[in-house]
Amino acid sequence: MKKVAVIGVGETRFGEHWYKSFRDLAVEAGIKSMEDANLERKDIGALFVGNMSAGKFIGQEHVASLVADHLGFSGIPCIRTESACASGSLAFRQALLSLQSGAYDAVMVEGVEKMTDIIGSQASLALMGAGDQEWEASVGLTFPGLYALIARRHMHEYGTTPEQLAMFSVNNHKNAVKNPDAQFRFEISVEDVLNSPLIADPLHLLDCSPITDGAASVLLATEDFIKKKKIKNPIWVLGSGQSSDTVALQDRKSLTAMFVTIDAAKKAYKQSGLKPKDIKIAEVHDCFSINGLMAIEDLGFCKKGEGGKFIEDGNISLGSTVSINTSGGLKAKGHPVGATGISQIIEIVKQLRGECEKRQVDAKYGLTHNIGGSGASCLVHIFGKEK
Amino acid sequence: MKKVAVIGVGETRFGEHWYKSFRDLAVEAGIKSMEDANLERKDIGALFVGNMSAGKFIGQEHVASLVADHLGFSGIPCIRTESACASGSLAFRQALLSLQSGAYDAVMVEGVEKMTDIIGSQASLALMGAGDQEWEASVGLTFPGLYALIARRHMHEYGTTPEQLAMFSVNNHKNAVKNPDAQFRFEISVEDVLNSPLIADPLHLLDCSPITDGAASVLLATEDFIKKKKIKNPIWVLGSGQSSDTVALQDRKSLTAMFVTIDAAKKAYKQSGLKPKDIKIAEVHDCFSINGLMAIEDLGFCKKGEGGKFIEDGNISLGSTVSINTSGGLKAKGHPVGATGISQIIEIVKQLRGECEKRQVDAKYGLTHNIGGSGASCLVHIFGKEK
Repeated sequence: MKKVAVIGVGETRFGEHWYKSFRDLAVEAGIKSMEDANLERKDIGALFVGNMSAGKFIGQEHVASLVADHLGFSGIPCIRTESACASGSLAFRQALLSLQSGAYDAVMVEGVEKMTDIIGSQASLALMGAGDQEWEASVGLTFPGLYALIARRHMHEYGTTPEQLAMFSVNNHKNAVKNPDAQFRFEISVEDVLNSPLIADPLHLLDCSPITDGAASVLLATEDFIKKKKIKNPIWVLGSGQSSDTVALQDRKSLTAMFVTIDAAKKAYKQSGLKPKDIKIAEVHDCFSINGLMAIEDLGFCKKGEGGKFIEDGNISLGSTVSINTSGGLKAKGHPVGATGISQIIEIVKQLRGECEKRQVDAKYGLTHNIGGSGASCLVHIFGKEK
Repeated sequence: MKKVAVIGVGETRFGEHWYKSFRDLAVEAGIKSMEDANLERKDIGALFVGNMSAGKFIGQEHVASLVADHLGFSGIPCIRTESACASGSLAFRQALLSLQSGAYDAVMVEGVEKMTDIIGSQASLALMGAGDQEWEASVGLTFPGLYALIARRHMHEYGTTPEQLAMFSVNNHKNAVKNPDAQFRFEISVEDVLNSPLIADPLHLLDCSPITDGAASVLLATEDFIKKKKIKNPIWVLGSGQSSDTVALQDRKSLTAMFVTIDAAKKAYKQSGLKPKDIKIAEVHDCFSINGLMAIEDLGFCKKGEGGKFIEDGNISLGSTVSINTSGGLKAKGHPVGATGISQIIEIVKQLRGECEKRQVDAKYGLTHNIGGSGASCLVHIFGKEK
């Protein structure tokens, strides 16, 4: 297969953008990534847009053409992909495969979501579109509820404590302070988490990722294009893995291991020829603290059931065994669902380029882990400085 | 690029399925296509699902994983694509490029939409998600209104008559009588169209495609897979073209020529090495009669402005110059938006295989033309019996 690399990145600040529209955010991120790569419009062969639910959030479908329209790209193929909260990484993988097919030389991949134009309860309902409407939403389940069931079972099986879950959020917030694009740039303590309102027992408010507006954009190109344009500092895609599982939680074999993470990671590790021990930096999908904790186990950074202790022993903090969510993660950087996967990739690319300043980590490889819903889809990508 | 062919097709009947859910329809179509190709689950490397707005129609996103779940496919990569009413063909093209990248050997591509679970006015609002929310929907425009503007301008510039527009619908209904999967299996006359209620002047009710439930599925495979499995009668993808334009009508250079059709067709013709005169059968996107008429011009079957006369002179009927919409088209076969592009492909595949019985046409090549919204996206595919 052709070698492909990320050659440009750009994103908006994540947060509540009450004075910017969906299209404003998408254009801002897109232009930043074009400037970063020093490319022109004519270089871009196609536009991929990861977006979960613009239909529900802003009444707008057809969003890939819309973004191209406002970027002045009309005429090129425009592709929107959706896989709930993994929509961004799905767009990335489809862009990757399209480049490898030979259809394009360079493409833009955006992730974008505008979530604050509707009120909170409607946003929760929109997000529940990622769950099973007939078997889960119909009985009143929402995402905090689904992940609370998972967390409770993990605590029962492995003795994981609320304190250990809290420590995941604490680490995220600590890193977010050093990320100018993050939504919540302040530190929190374990006590803050445990004293925050109980959302769905055992998950507190500070175990949960927020509602966020934001857009993130990367430019992907083939090796030939990179050589021809003499582009410096490409960050290569070494592995791409994608998997799926049942949408309803009740149909899964296990609540405490995410099959999609294990399977997508297996595929990505195999393609890259790397192992978990080679990965020193990873952005993992912590829509809730328990999901971040399980990701560490399922990606192979520690054994199943030992995630709590792994965190407690200081293995995920900046510059430790494996630096997890140096961006602040979904919890503190923010979680504009369709944009999240692309933003994770941007963090890894910037880390591997050495552009992360106060949160910079020394790493040769980096990994992103993006989950849809309660684990019905997952994409894992592995990146490296060298091919 | 690798050669890819359609090796299996299956669809539900199109219509109002009040006793079948979204997932029921998707499973029915999927299994039919598996039976048609005589493949097993383990042969399928990925599932692509074209769907426009399940979030609005049934509250459900994450639909590719959902369909895989209910087909028993969990574990494979699941990709939902959306480009309004062109979502199905977009899924098809992404599947094609993914196969050509080498990622998979055989994949399933479904299109599915369940539109009748909400009331008509809500369905119209959901469909308006394909237009520009800020510049079109906000002033009260709906799709009949947008296409009425286009039709009025076409009549002004080229003298196209309401009778000629009506003849497009008449041809569709005539063909639909011979298609057991069609929603409206009865003939209509020009007078019926002109006497039907005026929806948006000059478009009457019978100029407009209906609200429809339905699913359609095709299996796509590489040449190597087809040889290995000794699959008979593959229908080869000879050309694939995709283009985009502004979402809002006001920003277009022309109202009476669809840039996206012209551009996508140019790309598909070039890739296939074929010209319009080589095409004897085509499924074109007649969400409204005017769009079908313009497609005939923009695909090159007649000159710009002469579409009305071309139809009037009998050039689109079964077995004539170019047999248009032998399936019944969007007007009479029905238009479950996300499923439409795949259903168009199924009609062409069945025609090229010689399986269309009373509506069978003698053709070596066939073309599908699928538009999103009022022309912000378009995909054209060309198929042949030989590579």
